[in-house]
Amino acid sequence: MTTLNPVSSWKSFGGTLSVHDHESALLGCTMRFAVYTPPQAKDGPVPVLWYLSGLTCTWANMMEKSGVQQYAAEHGLMIIAPDTSPRGDHMPDDPAYDLGQGAGFYLTATEAPWAEHYRMDQYITDELPGLIAANFPADMARQGIFGHSMGGHGAITLHLKHKDRYRSCSAFSPITSPARVPWGQKAFTAYLGPLSVHWEAYDSTELVKERQSPALILVDTGTADSFLEKELKPEIFIEACERHGQRLDYRMREGYGHDYYFIATFMGEHVAHHAKALKA
Amino acid sequence: MTTLNPVSSWKSFGGTLSVHDHESALLGCTMRFAVYTPPQAKDGPVPVLWYLSGLTCTWANMMEKSGVQQYAAEHGLMIIAPDTSPRGDHMPDDPAYDLGQGAGFYLTATEAPWAEHYRMDQYITDELPGLIAANFPADMARQGIFGHSMGGHGAITLHLKHKDRYRSCSAFSPITSPARVPWGQKAFTAYLGPLSVHWEAYDSTELVKERQSPALILVDTGTADSFLEKELKPEIFIEACERHGQRLDYRMREGYGHDYYFIATFMGEHVAHHAKALKA
Repeated sequence: MTTLNPVSSWKSFGGTLSVHDHESALLGCTMRFAVYTPPQAKDGPVPVLWYLSGLTCTWANMMEKSGVQQYAAEHGLMIIAPDTSPRGDHMPDDPAYDLGQGAGFYLTATEAPWAEHYRMDQYITDELPGLIAANFPADMARQGIFGHSMGGHGAITLHLKHKDRYRSCSAFSPITSPARVPWGQKAFTAYLGPLSVHWEAYDSTELVKERQSPALILVDTGTADSFLEKELKPEIFIEACERHGQRLDYRMREGYGHDYYFIATFMGEHVAHHAKALKA
Repeated sequence: MTTLNPVSSWKSFGGTLSVHDHESALLGCTMRFAVYTPPQAKDGPVPVLWYLSGLTCTWANMMEKSGVQQYAAEHGLMIIAPDTSPRGDHMPDDPAYDLGQGAGFYLTATEAPWAEHYRMDQYITDELPGLIAANFPADMARQGIFGHSMGGHGAITLHLKHKDRYRSCSAFSPITSPARVPWGQKAFTAYLGPLSVHWEAYDSTELVKERQSPALILVDTGTADSFLEKELKPEIFIEACERHGQRLDYRMREGYGHDYYFIATFMGEHVAHHAKALKA
């Protein structure tokens, strides 16, 4: 069994935030993640809520800035915050912030030099859950998933592809049509090659046409988000959900940006959304 | 009138977090601070709560990690987060984290090379309030003060010396007996010279012997704080408050550390403590 190497641990809202390293056989590098274990876990396994971060982020942005611990402690949910790509000097990378390390896009790359290591979707769905189940008081029969920006893309696509696994889904400022926006087109061309037919399995708007989930997907996006018109384009996903019967509550939040101050403002509502589904 | 130069602005919990630069005539450098303006300020001036940060910090630690905005918005308080020292390449500094830039200790230095610029107590009590009053919807007749570690030291000493100004006071993990611990002895020797009689005006334990405040001072400190026994020594201040009739609610929090996860856990109770006093 893979060993977890403890990095840091803090008490927070009556529970414990812990950071761990492990050797990822799947990705071929040392990976770091954080877990918030709520106080309720003393009495037995608790539901698990996965948070996928955006471009350039690690476990830290979420755990330091979103205020999630308060709500996780209130509802008794475990929060998992993985990294956003393989890491290390020996790992393929790109100087741009939106490709390579910090920009894994929650997919399995097929193109050189990425294909050997960039498999963040499998890391989230296969390798890391095994470690969580073996090392934490997690009720793996009750899992939800959410994320921000690139991580909102990751959360919605993984939910639509694994709707029995992730019973609940939400996102902040998600990239829901990556095949139609610059961030997605750049990353998918590099990781998956130029043929956009290979991109569809990683595009929420394409997926929802064929794989609707019974869950209500909750989304919050700020009207002052500087990426709104160029990268997020909510209307494309909203229309696809309407047309194909996917339940969606997409809320535009007046004056908010793409930042963690926005996320913190609505974090309580998101955690409550997941708690309602996972504890039903 | 001094001009404020806007640096950043974000919507947060219905209010606005804004960061500003200004030329400080008192300190002789450009200074940066942050203000959280709650939604209630739309209807008129709101009470002001000053937060003084600890060693190495700027405005950002508090505003990014403490979750204060949620509670400030709930109670309708403005939060001011100043920097912790003069800043800039032309400014005296020291390579250690606990002296010079990032370590102003909220005092007026008398020793070279610090004396010309290091006047953080006057900056907090005189220069910055003028800017706040002139530029923000602040009710300067209702002010409170709190802080963390070195900033807890700053908050309690400034409260005891200006108890009519700051009607409420609280602290997380404060340095309450700086003259008796290594952090304080090192800084005070450098800034104030070796004669400890000159230190007493900046030592909460000494001040409380002669200048009790009518307010109840609220303090939270973690039992797992790695600085507890060497730098914080709560028992000295607790005994001085008991002996000299200073009302104090000093709570030791089981298992918590010196970090912002600890601060975030109890931030709601601190803001409520100030709101109760400032809105009475």
